[in-house]
Amino acid sequence: MYQAMTSLGFAAETHHNEQFALSGAPKGASVLVLGAGLAGMTAAYELRRAGYKVKVLEYNAKAGGRCWSLRGGDRYTELGGATQECRFDEGNYLNPGPWRIPYHHHAVLAYCKRFGVKLEPFIQVNYNALVHSTEAFGGKPKRHREVQADFQGHVAELLGKAVNQGALDQSLTVEDREKLFESLRAWGALDHDGNYRKNMESSLRRGFAVDAGGGLMPLAEPSEPIDRQALIDSGLWKKLIDGQEYEYQSSIFQPVGGMDMIAKAFERETGEMIRYGSKVTRIDQNEQGVTVTYKNSDGSGEAMQDKADWCVCTLPLSILSQIPVSVSQSMQDAIRAVPYDSSVKIGLQFKRRFWEEDEHIYGGISYTNTPIEKISYPSTDYGKSGKAVLLGAYVWGPNAYEFTAMSPEQRVKKAVEYGALLHAQYPEEFDNGIAVGWHRVPWAQGCYGMWSEDSREKHYRNLCQIDGRIVLAGEHASYIPAWMEGAILSSLDAIKRLHTHAVATQRAA
Amino acid sequence: MYQAMTSLGFAAETHHNEQFALSGAPKGASVLVLGAGLAGMTAAYELRRAGYKVKVLEYNAKAGGRCWSLRGGDRYTELGGATQECRFDEGNYLNPGPWRIPYHHHAVLAYCKRFGVKLEPFIQVNYNALVHSTEAFGGKPKRHREVQADFQGHVAELLGKAVNQGALDQSLTVEDREKLFESLRAWGALDHDGNYRKNMESSLRRGFAVDAGGGLMPLAEPSEPIDRQALIDSGLWKKLIDGQEYEYQSSIFQPVGGMDMIAKAFERETGEMIRYGSKVTRIDQNEQGVTVTYKNSDGSGEAMQDKADWCVCTLPLSILSQIPVSVSQSMQDAIRAVPYDSSVKIGLQFKRRFWEEDEHIYGGISYTNTPIEKISYPSTDYGKSGKAVLLGAYVWGPNAYEFTAMSPEQRVKKAVEYGALLHAQYPEEFDNGIAVGWHRVPWAQGCYGMWSEDSREKHYRNLCQIDGRIVLAGEHASYIPAWMEGAILSSLDAIKRLHTHAVATQRAA
Repeated sequence: MYQAMTSLGFAAETHHNEQFALSGAPKGASVLVLGAGLAGMTAAYELRRAGYKVKVLEYNAKAGGRCWSLRGGDRYTELGGATQECRFDEGNYLNPGPWRIPYHHHAVLAYCKRFGVKLEPFIQVNYNALVHSTEAFGGKPKRHREVQADFQGHVAELLGKAVNQGALDQSLTVEDREKLFESLRAWGALDHDGNYRKNMESSLRRGFAVDAGGGLMPLAEPSEPIDRQALIDSGLWKKLIDGQEYEYQSSIFQPVGGMDMIAKAFERETGEMIRYGSKVTRIDQNEQGVTVTYKNSDGSGEAMQDKADWCVCTLPLSILSQIPVSVSQSMQDAIRAVPYDSSVKIGLQFKRRFWEEDEHIYGGISYTNTPIEKISYPSTDYGKSGKAVLLGAYVWGPNAYEFTAMSPEQRVKKAVEYGALLHAQYPEEFDNGIAVGWHRVPWAQGCYGMWSEDSREKHYRNLCQIDGRIVLAGEHASYIPAWMEGAILSSLDAIKRLHTHAVATQRAA
Repeated sequence: MYQAMTSLGFAAETHHNEQFALSGAPKGASVLVLGAGLAGMTAAYELRRAGYKVKVLEYNAKAGGRCWSLRGGDRYTELGGATQECRFDEGNYLNPGPWRIPYHHHAVLAYCKRFGVKLEPFIQVNYNALVHSTEAFGGKPKRHREVQADFQGHVAELLGKAVNQGALDQSLTVEDREKLFESLRAWGALDHDGNYRKNMESSLRRGFAVDAGGGLMPLAEPSEPIDRQALIDSGLWKKLIDGQEYEYQSSIFQPVGGMDMIAKAFERETGEMIRYGSKVTRIDQNEQGVTVTYKNSDGSGEAMQDKADWCVCTLPLSILSQIPVSVSQSMQDAIRAVPYDSSVKIGLQFKRRFWEEDEHIYGGISYTNTPIEKISYPSTDYGKSGKAVLLGAYVWGPNAYEFTAMSPEQRVKKAVEYGALLHAQYPEEFDNGIAVGWHRVPWAQGCYGMWSEDSREKHYRNLCQIDGRIVLAGEHASYIPAWMEGAILSSLDAIKRLHTHAVATQRAA
């Protein structure tokens, strides 16, 4: 079968081997895993299958780490002490961390399949969603389809003209020119003469001023394209690129019911190995093994210690860099070399799905140049009555620091204010909201490890090497930062190397 | 609220008024509706709400017409007598007729909401699906994302060069040129100098030769773009346009469980008005009313007659043109002026979801220049074990006539043969199939009314006018041919006019 596949030209595209399985752990060998996020639980699951004695220490009262969903009744206390209680209705949720699974994240998909996590489409691109800039078109949003069709149409028209003027003669034969012009006409929805203009062809991309109807209803009327220069100046076309990028291309998924369905599935498999509410304060190693010192996360009780032959540490570097760890200087340097990006996500519950009912936006993402950046509508339960939650802000960069500095209530208030620039219904329909600023998440203190080309060069290999009896894993120890796939692949690679090393060490001994 | 919406620039785009409701039927007025497809059931539902006495005559043993799903255990006998028994496993189905609902088909969506039909995303565009031509690249399929990224990249590069060569000077200022060039770089994933070439940027659109990984896995490797001229010559880029067209743009939906969930929902509301198994043989009218002659579809019993004040006839013109109807010559001419298009759909059940398991194609459509045209993978139940059904052929034009002429078994065999050019697993994994050629569907004899510009001009208004006491409705009496939206809007418009006329007639009397 695989042979046949490759003969059609589909080479494997991934490092993930669905048959991945370690076996033959040294007799009695033990591993301490630090952190019960996806990297930690992957390590625990696979190492136990290989025969290791595994214990996991987890700061929180539940597993999953950044693979996390907030639902009605959940309480969340951030650094600084502010506590929010989520007041979403049954069935609504916010994924503060990862919220999408690309089709090529094979490791995530394979574990979802293995653990029975039901996936559904995530709608990334919605041609009827809005593209908004306060600096363009008087602040009036355009529809995605208008910007998409018009940018493509204008580009096709311009190139068609250049081709017909003979501007590219040196690189094209006459026949090539003709073929190119024909392809541009079709692709750009140009008229016979190569113009992108108001007519039925362009409206069949950008939508109509009046839609076609039935019986003796008024006839369809074409719509007027956006002026080329105004469109280019607006920058709105930049927002179209998202859906074409490898990481966000269709098909892209979400677990039915919230991203933490993945965390819960891993937890079902590994939960009995996890000690919850454990705050690691120190990691020591010598030639005999690893000693991890920890206390209860709530501060109760005395310091405790666990020992094991090996340690897989998946703590975010933002946390690990604050803890004494007996590793080489080069790994120490690497641990401290990676700043964590800042991001804020805000979930807003509204009294009704006005985006569907009034504006016919079903799922997908609207873009804005305001700090909220995106509004992402629910990809499921179309047409459902009752309250519904959308992602009301996905803030990055300096704006994220500003939002994180606000109280949660202020953040939510701001999200409603900015969102009202796209949806006039916001103030009237708003019900409640919850805001997670990643730099205030106690157990992450940032959203992901932000590598530069330079830091990769200097520190990445040092971070990932087995250091004595300790190996690190997590999205920060991957080339797929911020993604669950990075966490899992990093973990699989780390434990594979650790296992090989453990077996070799035993043989040598 | 509506005021606020329009102030943001979202005018109503549709003729469908969600508050549509007729009221005040003339006392005792009756309507005969012919055909219990969506147009007929819409008419029956709304006219009864308005106070009319309604009866519906339907040829089949169930309602829905072309809004139809085939499931395991269903038997279907086509013209010519061939009977197929569907042998799909539980949960699998083929929609021989409509299979998608665009976001702007407001009438369909509104009835789905009103009648509680649960919708889910239909995946139209899948960047990991295949684009195939026997004439290009030695018959080896490309991935959608490769063709998409490369076509766009090459176009951007060419236009960027033309811009920088000053070829378009007359239409662009220096500043405009710079802005355009910058936008093309971003949009086309060009390098700093404006070249579309093998590098990380282009691979972040078209995919990598080796994906990024975790830990110390091998580094990502960029992939090689398809040569520009070879790509243009291949024609594969034509297939990308589908997903940009108004009718197929995301978001686009399907009912959970099969398209006939819509038919069943309408049937729940109107079923008690329907007489099933009724073949209309004659439609007469005079100044007092309409008389419809019919017999049992199975040929049993004597001819029967029903009388009513008014008649809404939703029979396809392919059928109606074979029945004596007492309408004006101009409507007679219109009824005979519209040929019906030919199409064949083939559902194939496979032993497993190899397209997901081996090739990571989750939903969406692969395109081919072979007669099957499309392979559409299920948009739901990703990762599910067991047998699954895909749309293995959607044949049009001359090929559809050829397929319709074959036996159902031959059609299925052909679909498997052609599909194997895209998926080598086909022969080994094929389980069973079912094939519907629309020209052999007894009650439709074609798939939809195919208007030309000329026939619209001459006949459309004559077809849609109320003729005495008879009005026609259905997708054929709309500007949205072949779509359920056309059928419903046509019906709403027809009954609105009929109701006004009926009330006026009563007042005059």
